[in-house]
Amino acid sequence: MKIPVVRNVLEVNDRIADQNREIFDRNQLFVINLMSSPGAGKTSLLEKTIERLKDRIRIGVIEGDIQCSFDAERIAKKGVQAIQINTDGACHLDGNMIREAMSQLDLSALDLLVVENVGNLVCPAEFKVGEDMKIMLLSVTEGDDKPLKYPLMFKESRVLIINKIDLLPYVDCSIDNIRKAVSQLNRDMIIFELSCRTGEGLEAWTSWLEEQVANRKRSK
Amino acid sequence: MKIPVVRNVLEVNDRIADQNREIFDRNQLFVINLMSSPGAGKTSLLEKTIERLKDRIRIGVIEGDIQCSFDAERIAKKGVQAIQINTDGACHLDGNMIREAMSQLDLSALDLLVVENVGNLVCPAEFKVGEDMKIMLLSVTEGDDKPLKYPLMFKESRVLIINKIDLLPYVDCSIDNIRKAVSQLNRDMIIFELSCRTGEGLEAWTSWLEEQVANRKRSK
Repeated sequence: MKIPVVRNVLEVNDRIADQNREIFDRNQLFVINLMSSPGAGKTSLLEKTIERLKDRIRIGVIEGDIQCSFDAERIAKKGVQAIQINTDGACHLDGNMIREAMSQLDLSALDLLVVENVGNLVCPAEFKVGEDMKIMLLSVTEGDDKPLKYPLMFKESRVLIINKIDLLPYVDCSIDNIRKAVSQLNRDMIIFELSCRTGEGLEAWTSWLEEQVANRKRSK
Repeated sequence: MKIPVVRNVLEVNDRIADQNREIFDRNQLFVINLMSSPGAGKTSLLEKTIERLKDRIRIGVIEGDIQCSFDAERIAKKGVQAIQINTDGACHLDGNMIREAMSQLDLSALDLLVVENVGNLVCPAEFKVGEDMKIMLLSVTEGDDKPLKYPLMFKESRVLIINKIDLLPYVDCSIDNIRKAVSQLNRDMIIFELSCRTGEGLEAWTSWLEEQVANRKRSK
């Protein structure tokens, strides 16, 4: 007799994430899981991205925070569907939380769903939520040693957005060093350099994202 | 018959932390648990603090990182005892890790022990390691909404060090807003504003720290 063994929390989570993914696929949704340290600029990036794309693609956002709903309020002001998850202490989102949140969104009315994770460079990288890809932000103010100190996040993410490049003259951070370290961890990582504050570099990012959403539609 | 129940991980951790604390107290050590987001400047603050105080007080450092030993190497270069803990994926230090690390330090030869936690604004706040107090850093580049988004960290810490104030002209962050939010969470929090890069504000912090170490010696 073979006894089924639930090996660990991550395995259970993966199963729920796969179920979420099936539902997303059925709705032809492109889904990204956006991760970074606290204050690297995830919500600001989303605001700027929505401003540029919302007339051409239909965007929904699930916001993850320990508590409060400031971020979902910021996003809702931009005129898109937004849901806030409060993790009540947990340092990452998991498949189950997304399953709850997505049931409150009209998925058939969306092309792109962004899950903004809790600000944390560690655990979010371990938990799938059903996304097509993980995308991470790194602010130049965090320093260029982060890829080697938080390698899993850089290995698991398909895209790295280096934010706050307007601050480069005032901080000890080399984009070259970040790129070198990333090439050791994840050779195919796509890298964008931008500033949500000045707008520099945003066009390349939003064009790329729009193309991903279009490809996803075509592939179904 | 009363069955002993281990209620949760945190309870077990608290017990180990209390045992660590007894050993620290026996050695008349002042112990701080230093916490922040990745890249807020914990190691830079320690370098500057050690430079200013190492001729007057004996300092040891336990560095916590997911992997690598860059930070312990930076600290050891300053001529003090340094131990690196690699958590191998865990997003915070706990009492057990510190118990292991402290056994490799000559505690009787120290006045001040600094535990530099993993860069994370969430879980480190929940896990005692045996410290006298938790001290947190917040960089102005992270924005002024962090107290309300990561309240436990601000509630559990005795001291808040606001770092990178040299960048205030270039970011959307109000020290007033931080102070207002903190006053709602932790009225007695001691706040220092400084820049590790320019040196502004460091004197107030290191004087205060030196006084805490002296008080601890006197109290035994």
